[in-house]
Formats: sequence, structure tokens, C-alpha cells
Amino acid sequence: MSVLPKSVKQVIEEFSKLPGIGPKSASRMAYHYLRSSNMDASKLANALLNMETNIKNCNKCFNVSESEECEICGSPLRKKGKICVVEEPLDVVAFEDSGVYDGVYFVLGGVISPSEGIGADELRFKELRKRAEELLLEEDSVEVIIATNPSLEGEATASYVIDIFKNLVKEGKVKITRLAMGLPTGADLEYADRLTLKKALEGRRDI
Amino acid sequence: MSVLPKSVKQVIEEFSKLPGIGPKSASRMAYHYLRSSNMDASKLANALLNMETNIKNCNKCFNVSESEECEICGSPLRKKGKICVVEEPLDVVAFEDSGVYDGVYFVLGGVISPSEGIGADELRFKELRKRAEELLLEEDSVEVIIATNPSLEGEATASYVIDIFKNLVKEGKVKITRLAMGLPTGADLEYADRLTLKKALEGRRDI
Repeated sequence: MSVLPKSVKQVIEEFSKLPGIGPKSASRMAYHYLRSSNMDASKLANALLNMETNIKNCNKCFNVSESEECEICGSPLRKKGKICVVEEPLDVVAFEDSGVYDGVYFVLGGVISPSEGIGADELRFKELRKRAEELLLEEDSVEVIIATNPSLEGEATASYVIDIFKNLVKEGKVKITRLAMGLPTGADLEYADRLTLKKALEGRRDI
Repeated sequence: MSVLPKSVKQVIEEFSKLPGIGPKSASRMAYHYLRSSNMDASKLANALLNMETNIKNCNKCFNVSESEECEICGSPLRKKGKICVVEEPLDVVAFEDSGVYDGVYFVLGGVISPSEGIGADELRFKELRKRAEELLLEEDSVEVIIATNPSLEGEATASYVIDIFKNLVKEGKVKITRLAMGLPTGADLEYADRLTLKKALEGRRDI
């Protein structure tokens, strides 16, 4: 890499910080712009600067948005009696792309992870509680659907969500549910891991 | 994707144009910047703009460079009697990283590829001939090492290089060589493809 001009090295360095991008891919990406005769590099640069300026968090669900209130929270078509609690904005995209959900969301901003120094204070638990109370002004009861990832951190985070709603659950105002765990569509039983099989067995249903 | 803010979509679109980056990776890359609280997005943006402003081609070998003459062409340590002809600037990086070459380079800017509409006129054959003549002012003879990729297009491009040096070769001023083909280090004979085995056999050497 010593032979590379400094300005190219800087671009490679920035690309390398991206998730899943190693030094080889980063060089290939930088060189793509050196080859293409058009203005693709400045197009990406301007798109990034534009995004940085325009994107804020929705003040209700904390999903990324260009306005104070995101399209989902602002839509009269979305059911306000269901709030799906996810870790990251990309999880909202996954649900929306699948088109299987008609309620609103709440983005926690991560998971509790002692190993990465992320405690409960770093996440939006207070805001989640506040948002549920807001929804309860319009709705008789609210279903909080916990949709954190099925990982250790996701589980710890889920317990914390259950905790903050303890009394609202007792009062019958909040109902907490979790996404089902089991075999994914198209899975091969033979290759399923032990925990998945255990969850699939525990969650078996009458037919 | 319909739920994404426009400015995020634009960044994803630009990332998707990069080689080896599909829509999923592009989203993950864009969201990386939405998550990180620091100024990484503008860092990449500024690095790209800076690169676009500062990078030109070396006027001797056409490798990327921040000055009129690149470090390699300008170095008194590099042998001027050997010129390694490559397709792209990244090929120069591969040679330099390996540290096995002490001559100079020439970047053709691609390969002849009728399917992509790239003919001989799009590549720097005239400039290559001119560069060799320049080197011949200082050197008695010049070795032109053809280092195009071992693909159909690379072969066609190699033939063209041989063609433009026909009379200089006859005059004994230019000698043309090609990179050896055969088994790569660490290869498994069992999995080697037919053409590689053929080339390895044809190129076998006495020991």
C-alpha cells in the first residue's frame, strides 16, 4: 500500500471502517472511482453529506426520518395499539419490506451489551415507556411486541423491556408478546442447531 | 425500501454502484453512518472529494498519482529498461505489495473487449509505444513485460501490444515477455482446471 497516493489511502481507510468491508474490498471500491470517468465519487460524497444534514430521528419512534415525525408514526393507517420494539432502524426496514405488520415501531438504539460497555442507560427504555403511555391516551390497551434479536444480548434487552412495563401489565393496560422462535421457512431439520430445535419443540402447536 | 427517507435511499443507490456491493450490503453501509454518532459520513465524503480533486494520471505510466510524475517513474532506483504493461492501477498495487519487481510500469487503462464496446482506440497503445521510445533514448534496449490478466480479453490485448512493437522487436531494441502461466502456489492439482494444467505442462522446465 506504500505506493498509493495519500488521498487514495484516506478513501480506502474510510471505506474499511464500514461493516463487512476488508482492506481488499475497500481498495477495489476506491479504485472504482479512479477508473470511472464520470462524477460518481462526488455523487456519493454529496449523497453522504446530504444524508448527514437531513436525517434526524422520529421524535416518537426514533426511526430515521427526514421530518420530526416519521411516515409510519404519522400514518392514519397504522394501528396505534401495537408497538413493535426493535434494536435498530434496519430492523424496521426488514418488517416493512415483508409487509406483514400494520402497527407502529420503537427503535431502542441497540442492545444491552456489557462486553461493549452498553448498559440500559444507553438505550431508549425511558422513551419507550413514555411512548407507550402516550399511545395509551388514545388506546384502551397497547400490545408491546418485543422483536429484539434471538441472541444473549437480545434476551437481556427483552427482560429489561418486560421490567419497565411491569405495573402497566398488572393494570391490564399493556400486553407483552415476543416474536415466535422455531424453524425458519426452508430450513433443513438435519442442519438446525440444538437451540433452534429446542425452541421449535417447546413452541409446538396443536393442529 | 419504500419506507426509507429519500436521502438514505440516495446513499444506498450510490453504494450499490460499487463493485461487489449488492443492495443489502449497501443498506448496511448507509445505516452504519446513521448509527455512528461521530462524523464518519462526512469524513468519507471529504476523502472522496479530496481524492477527486487531487488524483491525476502520471504522465509517463498513467498510474494514479498526486503529481505529474508518479513516485515509481520518478525514482532513480527503478530500472528503466523494464516496463511492465498492466490493465489497471490496482495491478500495479499487486506488484508493489509483493515487492518482486524493480522496473517501471505502464497502465493501459483496461482490456480490449468487444462485448463492452472497448476497442483498441480506448486503450493507451499509442502512449505505450511513445513511452517505450522515450525509454529507448536512455536505454539500449527495453523489455516489455506483458502482465494482462489470463483471460480472453487479456490475451487479445496482449496480441495488440505485441503488434505495436513489431518493428522495434525486429530492430532488436525491444524484447517482449509474458508472465508465466501455471499452477499458483498452494494449489491442489486435483482441483486445477484443464487450461491451467495444460499451461503448466506446456511451460514445464528442466530441473
